Amino acid sequence: MGNIIVQKYGGSSVGDIDRIRNVADRVVKQCKEGNKVVVVVSAMGKTTDELIEKAKALSSKPSDREMDMLLSTGEQISVSLLAIAVNDSCCKAISLTGSQCGIITDFNHKKARIDMIKTDRIMKELESHDIIIVAGFQGVNRNHDITTLGRGGSDTTAVALAAALKAEKCEIYTDVDGVYSSDPRKVKGAKKLNRISYDEMLEMAALGAGVLHPRSVELARKYDVPLEVKSSFVYEEGTKIINRNSFEETEIRGVTLDEDISKISLLGVPDVPGIAFKIFSEISENNIPVDMIIQNVNHNGVNDISFAVKGEDYEKTMTLCQRIVKDIGANGIIGDENVVKLSVVGTGISGNTKITSLYFKTLYEMGINIQMISTSPIKISCIIKNDKGIDALNKVHDIFEEYMI
Amino acid sequence: MGNIIVQKYGGSSVGDIDRIRNVADRVVKQCKEGNKVVVVVSAMGKTTDELIEKAKALSSKPSDREMDMLLSTGEQISVSLLAIAVNDSCCKAISLTGSQCGIITDFNHKKARIDMIKTDRIMKELESHDIIIVAGFQGVNRNHDITTLGRGGSDTTAVALAAALKAEKCEIYTDVDGVYSSDPRKVKGAKKLNRISYDEMLEMAALGAGVLHPRSVELARKYDVPLEVKSSFVYEEGTKIINRNSFEETEIRGVTLDEDISKISLLGVPDVPGIAFKIFSEISENNIPVDMIIQNVNHNGVNDISFAVKGEDYEKTMTLCQRIVKDIGANGIIGDENVVKLSVVGTGISGNTKITSLYFKTLYEMGINIQMISTSPIKISCIIKNDKGIDALNKVHDIFEEYMI
Repeated sequence: MGNIIVQKYGGSSVGDIDRIRNVADRVVKQCKEGNKVVVVVSAMGKTTDELIEKAKALSSKPSDREMDMLLSTGEQISVSLLAIAVNDSCCKAISLTGSQCGIITDFNHKKARIDMIKTDRIMKELESHDIIIVAGFQGVNRNHDITTLGRGGSDTTAVALAAALKAEKCEIYTDVDGVYSSDPRKVKGAKKLNRISYDEMLEMAALGAGVLHPRSVELARKYDVPLEVKSSFVYEEGTKIINRNSFEETEIRGVTLDEDISKISLLGVPDVPGIAFKIFSEISENNIPVDMIIQNVNHNGVNDISFAVKGEDYEKTMTLCQRIVKDIGANGIIGDENVVKLSVVGTGISGNTKITSLYFKTLYEMGINIQMISTSPIKISCIIKNDKGIDALNKVHDIFEEYMI
Repeated sequence: MGNIIVQKYGGSSVGDIDRIRNVADRVVKQCKEGNKVVVVVSAMGKTTDELIEKAKALSSKPSDREMDMLLSTGEQISVSLLAIAVNDSCCKAISLTGSQCGIITDFNHKKARIDMIKTDRIMKELESHDIIIVAGFQGVNRNHDITTLGRGGSDTTAVALAAALKAEKCEIYTDVDGVYSSDPRKVKGAKKLNRISYDEMLEMAALGAGVLHPRSVELARKYDVPLEVKSSFVYEEGTKIINRNSFEETEIRGVTLDEDISKISLLGVPDVPGIAFKIFSEISENNIPVDMIIQNVNHNGVNDISFAVKGEDYEKTMTLCQRIVKDIGANGIIGDENVVKLSVVGTGISGNTKITSLYFKTLYEMGINIQMISTSPIKISCIIKNDKGIDALNKVHDIFEEYMI
């Protein structure tokens, strides 16, 4: 048996009959090079949206279980059509649903997590077929009910299969040709990266680069699956997401702007042990992800504590914090939706003070006030006012371009 | 647990969102009367045709296995949408695919036959749900591949489930309001039948009444499942298909016209033992169903043998018979596509010579020559020229109206 390569094609790559034929050609090409190909496919273009619309017309609160039953048909249609297209060539393909492919999940409909992959069926089919076409985004729970994996589901299916099958690599085909140093729609000088580490990709993804869902990158990192992001419309190299960069040298990967963020500050919080735990455990219990937490030094026995949340969680968090402020005897609360988060991502940043100071200097020269700062070994993020977000993004990208590879 | 009633709704009954809501109302009504309802649903309106069209655009010969994978999504969409609609009411529903419902079939894709129904899952769900919504037309083989049941598939699913669950009855909802004594589009006086026996229904179905597929009627007869054909658009009694009519009395059910028929005559066939076997075993090996076979008395050591086949099989059968005629040393072959089969169906016909002679007399008075005759305990069929088919249908229906119940 040849090497196994896992390829994933998103909804826009199989949006119509011609595009399905295009994907079939690409898969057959890979197969002719002597590889076994496991292809993971999403639902065609707008299929999922159309199904959701029908469900909403029948009920304002359709059950998660029935929605999974409904939406999983989208991928089932894509995989059978792609199998039909491939079988019209000299290669032999078979399509499998998530269930047939042995993707066993937990019981959380609409956001299931994969418990295990029983590879028996797929290994057996690989003996008699060149190409296995698997419905992405879906699995089956131990009650034989269909589940869907939620956001980034098809990418997750692909990476999980690559890990389970010990595939040579996992290629993610999409409508962009790779991961960029910044959003090309906002930054003129944005350039395609040849490679990026899992950790850097996670920062880029979490910060809004939007090509790969963090969940699939985390899984790839955990099982050391070589990932590559490529365009399904052209034949050229994409961006490789691999385990390690060169030692020591500082390499900037990109500059990102997260515009969907809000800042909340709790004022005059009593500086007693356990107060941060009290605040953030309540927020966490309400399923609100908190992004940055800043606590300044104690003034007269009280602190100001600031943190950032996603725009969609802003109202909910403010309401919750009004109550928390009373409970803990703080002085008040200030919220600000008119902020953005500008981040420089790359390896070796934390050990390189030149990068940090160059970043801060650039913002200073633009007259931009930094409201919050957060750093990690591979990124520096600043919260700034939103009115100069795009300008700052472009300027900082220009400044760091010489460090990019 | 209340009585179990199985209901089946065809594609036109769930053709759009409003119609799905209508079916949900009907099912909920049945449930409120204290019954447990198992609902079998077909794919929405034109869904199946649209999917076939997509497959044909990708390959002139899509494999049966992949077509089943593709087409089974149609019913999966219907059942989840119907479950969503029902769950918006006070009743609790769950949808199941053929596979989840335990419908185990053989390996013949596109025309699978049901081997068994594992009722464990559906019985378990009936404990906690009022309404179980099952995808018609589909099952799963022992390799976990999705199969479809072919023609009359959803009716067959419904009757098979009613048998397996020992349901009180099986209601087939469609866009007509029952079984008629003749085709209402062709016969002005055609009237809805209140009841009909399985055997009579089989004759009516095989002869082109078209409301129920013979396969589902055969299954209902075998397991003694009370069937009822009703309209999904009005609330009124339909036609009951039950086990037995009143003893002795002759009851005419209807008069049918099969216009999709051709006659083939082999001339001067040597009258030696085994000759009929030789002819019809060859035809049978080519999967051509033969409808009537007539052999007249021997003249000078040779016979003429005539039989009828479906219009679509005519060319194929003629070609085959050219060879057979040479092999067996017959004199020649005559084919005629311009014929129709007019049949009177009802209980006690064979024992009632009055019916037979009245039928023949009617055709004689119309100047219609009878080319072939075939009788069974519950029908008399005549092959006549097609130009007077509709006239004869109406006239014979009129004549026998007084015998109809």
